[in-house]
Amino acid sequence: MTVQTRAGVAARIDQALGDAPADLVIRNARVLDLTGGTPPDETVPGDVAVCGDRIVGIADSYRGVREIDAGGRFVVPGFIDSHLHCESTLVTPLEFDRCVLPRGTTTVICDPHEICNVLGTEGLEYFLAAADRTILDLRVQLSSCVPATHLETAGATLTAADLVRYRHNPHVVGLAEFMNFPGLLAKDPDCLDKIAAFEGAHIDGHAPLLSGKRLNAYLACGIRNCHETSSLAEGREKLAKGMQVLIRSGSVAKDIEALAPLITDFASPFLGFCTDDRNPLDIAEDGHMDYLVRRAIGLGAPVAATYRAASWSAARGFGLRDRGIVAPGYLADLLVLDDLETCRVARVIRRGQPVSAESFAGRAPLAVPGGNTMRRGAVRAEDLAVRASGPGTPVIGVLRGKIVTERRQADLPYSGGFRHADPARDLLKVAVLERHGKNGNIGRGFVQGFGIRGGALASSVGHDSHNICVLGDDDADMALAANRLIDLGGGFVAVRGGEVVAELALSIAGLMSDQPFETVTHKLELLRAAVGGMGCVLDEPFVQLAFLALPVIPHLKITDLGLVDVDRFELITE
Amino acid sequence: MTVQTRAGVAARIDQALGDAPADLVIRNARVLDLTGGTPPDETVPGDVAVCGDRIVGIADSYRGVREIDAGGRFVVPGFIDSHLHCESTLVTPLEFDRCVLPRGTTTVICDPHEICNVLGTEGLEYFLAAADRTILDLRVQLSSCVPATHLETAGATLTAADLVRYRHNPHVVGLAEFMNFPGLLAKDPDCLDKIAAFEGAHIDGHAPLLSGKRLNAYLACGIRNCHETSSLAEGREKLAKGMQVLIRSGSVAKDIEALAPLITDFASPFLGFCTDDRNPLDIAEDGHMDYLVRRAIGLGAPVAATYRAASWSAARGFGLRDRGIVAPGYLADLLVLDDLETCRVARVIRRGQPVSAESFAGRAPLAVPGGNTMRRGAVRAEDLAVRASGPGTPVIGVLRGKIVTERRQADLPYSGGFRHADPARDLLKVAVLERHGKNGNIGRGFVQGFGIRGGALASSVGHDSHNICVLGDDDADMALAANRLIDLGGGFVAVRGGEVVAELALSIAGLMSDQPFETVTHKLELLRAAVGGMGCVLDEPFVQLAFLALPVIPHLKITDLGLVDVDRFELITE
Repeated sequence: MTVQTRAGVAARIDQALGDAPADLVIRNARVLDLTGGTPPDETVPGDVAVCGDRIVGIADSYRGVREIDAGGRFVVPGFIDSHLHCESTLVTPLEFDRCVLPRGTTTVICDPHEICNVLGTEGLEYFLAAADRTILDLRVQLSSCVPATHLETAGATLTAADLVRYRHNPHVVGLAEFMNFPGLLAKDPDCLDKIAAFEGAHIDGHAPLLSGKRLNAYLACGIRNCHETSSLAEGREKLAKGMQVLIRSGSVAKDIEALAPLITDFASPFLGFCTDDRNPLDIAEDGHMDYLVRRAIGLGAPVAATYRAASWSAARGFGLRDRGIVAPGYLADLLVLDDLETCRVARVIRRGQPVSAESFAGRAPLAVPGGNTMRRGAVRAEDLAVRASGPGTPVIGVLRGKIVTERRQADLPYSGGFRHADPARDLLKVAVLERHGKNGNIGRGFVQGFGIRGGALASSVGHDSHNICVLGDDDADMALAANRLIDLGGGFVAVRGGEVVAELALSIAGLMSDQPFETVTHKLELLRAAVGGMGCVLDEPFVQLAFLALPVIPHLKITDLGLVDVDRFELITE
Repeated sequence: MTVQTRAGVAARIDQALGDAPADLVIRNARVLDLTGGTPPDETVPGDVAVCGDRIVGIADSYRGVREIDAGGRFVVPGFIDSHLHCESTLVTPLEFDRCVLPRGTTTVICDPHEICNVLGTEGLEYFLAAADRTILDLRVQLSSCVPATHLETAGATLTAADLVRYRHNPHVVGLAEFMNFPGLLAKDPDCLDKIAAFEGAHIDGHAPLLSGKRLNAYLACGIRNCHETSSLAEGREKLAKGMQVLIRSGSVAKDIEALAPLITDFASPFLGFCTDDRNPLDIAEDGHMDYLVRRAIGLGAPVAATYRAASWSAARGFGLRDRGIVAPGYLADLLVLDDLETCRVARVIRRGQPVSAESFAGRAPLAVPGGNTMRRGAVRAEDLAVRASGPGTPVIGVLRGKIVTERRQADLPYSGGFRHADPARDLLKVAVLERHGKNGNIGRGFVQGFGIRGGALASSVGHDSHNICVLGDDDADMALAANRLIDLGGGFVAVRGGEVVAELALSIAGLMSDQPFETVTHKLELLRAAVGGMGCVLDEPFVQLAFLALPVIPHLKITDLGLVDVDRFELITE
């Protein structure tokens, strides 16, 4: 809670009444009405007066100590990214701040479960320390599923007791996405304990394709939202059951295309937008929350309902009662837009302060967690061989732009007691190598859908345990890629014909770069070109590779323990 | 916060999945969709399963330990009265519970400022003790303006320090209606202290006719809602400024007639319904929240938006995140309705328990605050004489069905240095007699609009200081009425031609009866008939009398200190 004084309240009254100049005035604005006092999609003309970090006046004429002339442009509340893993932007939280705040994202609800899977509470503490420093409001949810499941080896475990200690931290809203829905519905005791410990508090959901009584049971545990909705029918059922649908457009999962028809005046309080996993290349090229708003309107969603979903509805869903509309008494997180339809952000004001390059320069520095987290020795080509009893095997079918996979069946080339990749049919080998120094496990399998020939990709980002994921048509190239990755302390590596052709080091926990986001963007462009040169048909091959290891997304996945049938929630044994 | 156990969560999952029979099932229901998963005003067929106090399943088939067959009828969430003074029902909180819960009101946000003005924190403690016992959820806001203003004498004073002690009481949401808006806008230090002490917490508003920069300043203090909106233009401005408009229909103030057009799909999250002051006769004849819903729909409001305003929107506005929709994980406060348009409540379920006469019989008893609070001696007719310098005087113009008054001017009969009533022109005398044993003040004035001839009315309910309000065309009748009132320990008295013709004792703080609501209803009928017999043209003469003393409602009022010009916020001196 903010501490307020008699003088502080008096200053707000004086400035709102116009008896004293306001600290900041945005003159000649058109405030988009998100509360319904005017006809739909209408704007309210006038000045916006700000005292300290609060809006104190709209729809009237004001003078300010500092004034910005909006020249008749639009003013809307700052955007809220309702669910993301900051680590997926591949930069530090401070770089993320510098990357997305100028695009209008003033609040983010982040789940640091990537770094927590590697570093445990040290990762959580790193994000809480970052939240003290960022200009945008970085909310840190408590990662509920570290590890995500019992079907993989993570670097750390967070118990209910570990999490409850942080429940009342001012940067925390509640428990982060409860991904282990199969475990919860099977009444896994650790899952039940976490739900019980957060009764009455906020709990985020993750329920891809969940429906009927299983969805009822998940919601009955007090879970309130879902960012894993990919079809309209799924969205309608979740909405009708009171679940807030956080419409996503990440680097891979672009659910906005299917879900835009959900956005109506009536449903808008139960919607929100999120990026979940979006890399800086996509942010640079398409945008962040501004992209989601633009795309939703482009797909036919009503303007005010869309802006409401991007701000107030998200705030409401997380119990952030101080923000999300442009109205007296609310936080002065404000955007000046050239145009509502294209959502071109001309100016950003955060807590009453116009955002500029200097805003970021003034932040206190933040120490990064040290040490190489690639805790395994070099791998040999023969370690990746797949010994098997015959050619027939389940194969992971990758779908372009989706993190849900298909379970396919194929007969692979089989010789000498080993199965081999068959690049002619786009059947590549994939392996997951434990890298936390726990057991050195290697899970092996096959995947279809990448289209790569004559090369290999390796990534230390491998949701959510973040073991090394490596994929290719040649074991020697795969081993080279993995070993270069280990030398880098983590990152992305592309190998072609026995040579490393592109790479990005992610030295912080094997997840994040210590470089500026512009540098990371440039290296991603080089990686994209290199992988495209191998014939890859996916837009985001490294992100799709990283999601092959996430056994809480249907239907077939792979971890360091082997292939996982997500629907049965068990390992596949031959 | 509810404490939850592993077994408690497991039971919800089992019952939601249908692996165990649910504790309660409402079969063959049609759940009105308030979240927008279906087309507007549509219902979702299926059973509603309840485990303990929570809904665990909808839109599916369930079996229960206990089953209620809805026979295709509608199920909606319990109603929330978003602002009321329980004392205005003239019965104890436990009787109020028994009176309104069977009509579908499952949560009420009450401000006990009537009893607090008489008894101070003893009154607040009485309501908090009641909240431990009622079946409905009685939320007790902390009365922010005791006394309402400096222009009257109340029985007690509540300071910011007094109130902050109760801030974290589980029955408390926040600070009750901040009525003293003139004081706040004038930066009265006590007002500023209360606002500062509740920064970041919920603060209810009261802002009749406030507009423009003055409304901005009031909202800038963090005040979030208003139940004092009486015109559409006023409602639209408040909504556009983010203020939640709590549409009222009390015994006098019937704002729903003017405000129903505010109810749209888009605006509905920022609306709510309330009764403020509604007596048991009106509840018996017309209903409680069910009346507001019925009336709104009758006036053309969209059905789902109306039901949403009556439940979820109100819950949202007060941060009650556990209720307001019929969905898994939400509190099982459920109504079975015969029909949506007429809002006939067939069955009420509160926290998963069907409500019956036995529900109320099982409540723990509640001791009432003791002692006669009519702390003044008998009054003589000559004490009511109005000594004046001439015939011309401001007169309070009463408007039927409104608590806002007009300031009129009249020349009264004038003789011997005294002004007199003129019943032929409906100009009656009104007096307010201090009754808290503080100073024995008598404020005197004249009022137009009651239409009474040959009689007098007296009331110990006199908002908000609850001094004795007495009105009539004859000083002797007025004195008789006041003295009978003192003998009763408070109440309502009607005198005609020198005789008490009807009365109701309100022995608890001079505000509430210790009798069942049915008895009070009957006595109110007798009073209504008696006052009607005197020619009274108002539907609710005692309520309108009681509001003559409230100097935070424009435009002309009277307290024990004399006539108050509310617009100038000062006493009128000749």
